[in-house]
Amino acid sequence: MPQTPQFTKKRPDGDTHDRMICDRCGFIDYVNPKIVVGSVISADNGKIVMCRRAIEPRSGFWTIPAGYLEVNETTTHGAEREAWEEACARITITDLLAVYNIPRISQVQLIYRARLAAPDIAPGQESLEVGLFEWNEIPWDELAFPSVHWALDHFDSVRTKDAFAPFTNPPGDMGNMMPGQTSS
Amino acid sequence: MPQTPQFTKKRPDGDTHDRMICDRCGFIDYVNPKIVVGSVISADNGKIVMCRRAIEPRSGFWTIPAGYLEVNETTTHGAEREAWEEACARITITDLLAVYNIPRISQVQLIYRARLAAPDIAPGQESLEVGLFEWNEIPWDELAFPSVHWALDHFDSVRTKDAFAPFTNPPGDMGNMMPGQTSS
Repeated sequence: MPQTPQFTKKRPDGDTHDRMICDRCGFIDYVNPKIVVGSVISADNGKIVMCRRAIEPRSGFWTIPAGYLEVNETTTHGAEREAWEEACARITITDLLAVYNIPRISQVQLIYRARLAAPDIAPGQESLEVGLFEWNEIPWDELAFPSVHWALDHFDSVRTKDAFAPFTNPPGDMGNMMPGQTSS
Repeated sequence: MPQTPQFTKKRPDGDTHDRMICDRCGFIDYVNPKIVVGSVISADNGKIVMCRRAIEPRSGFWTIPAGYLEVNETTTHGAEREAWEEACARITITDLLAVYNIPRISQVQLIYRARLAAPDIAPGQESLEVGLFEWNEIPWDELAFPSVHWALDHFDSVRTKDAFAPFTNPPGDMGNMMPGQTSS
């Protein structure tokens, strides 16, 4: 059985930053910012797809389908995959809705606007339940993350627009807990 | 002295992908896509800032200021930092010009449109020379990467527009060598 890694913060020769280096094996853990991809998905009747999280952080709270971009995946394919994994939703991405930055946790979120391409949705492994919500039925007090609220508000503000410049963080708001924050 | 790490490709419990796991210490090396940030920078007279690369890949060829986003850095701050590091250029970012995906190398590029905020530019450590180019003076046959050509064309197509939806890869073009591809 392997031992557990034992990391110490040191600066490798010729590096500009300290890195976490394993005392046992010498592995240097280079940390890069991470990309979260997700989508605000509306049905033909205007209702919005929401998922109640089955996993931490914020298990039991509501979110839009979003998660980490995988290696060798494009950002739109990643958003489509997350919609399928979390809500069994087939979607058609129409626009880039927003780019949110969460520098404290080195996270960049690319959130797309999408249409529900097939009417049926169902909870995926990471969801307790999924639903299609009218705007005023959205569980605003039980949203999992600030960026979910940002994305829903930004989506609603461009419902009538065919094309628009993507949104960024609300002024002065660098966010806190974000989707997938505790994932690697 | 630590040993060298010895990685084997395995699937951690409950994971959807195989990961490289160290046989010696059990460390799981999650590999994530990388974010490149850059900008097409124009001066008040419409000329565009270009840098001739002093480093591989494509040393001696021309590029726009771009490079890897650092930990705890926002995408706009990263683009401003790269403009300063490569061209000693102080810039004012006005729009997100494009999101380019290079899935083969797990790279996402966020390229901004920017104005040159102070007239003086100079070569940074990673540049052999820098210049301000009229559109027809750009060294089109000596551009370092396909995405540089994409970004310049996309920039030129929205010179008269105050707001626009960001561009993506040209149809059918997933690119090949990209800025910073060999960096970590």
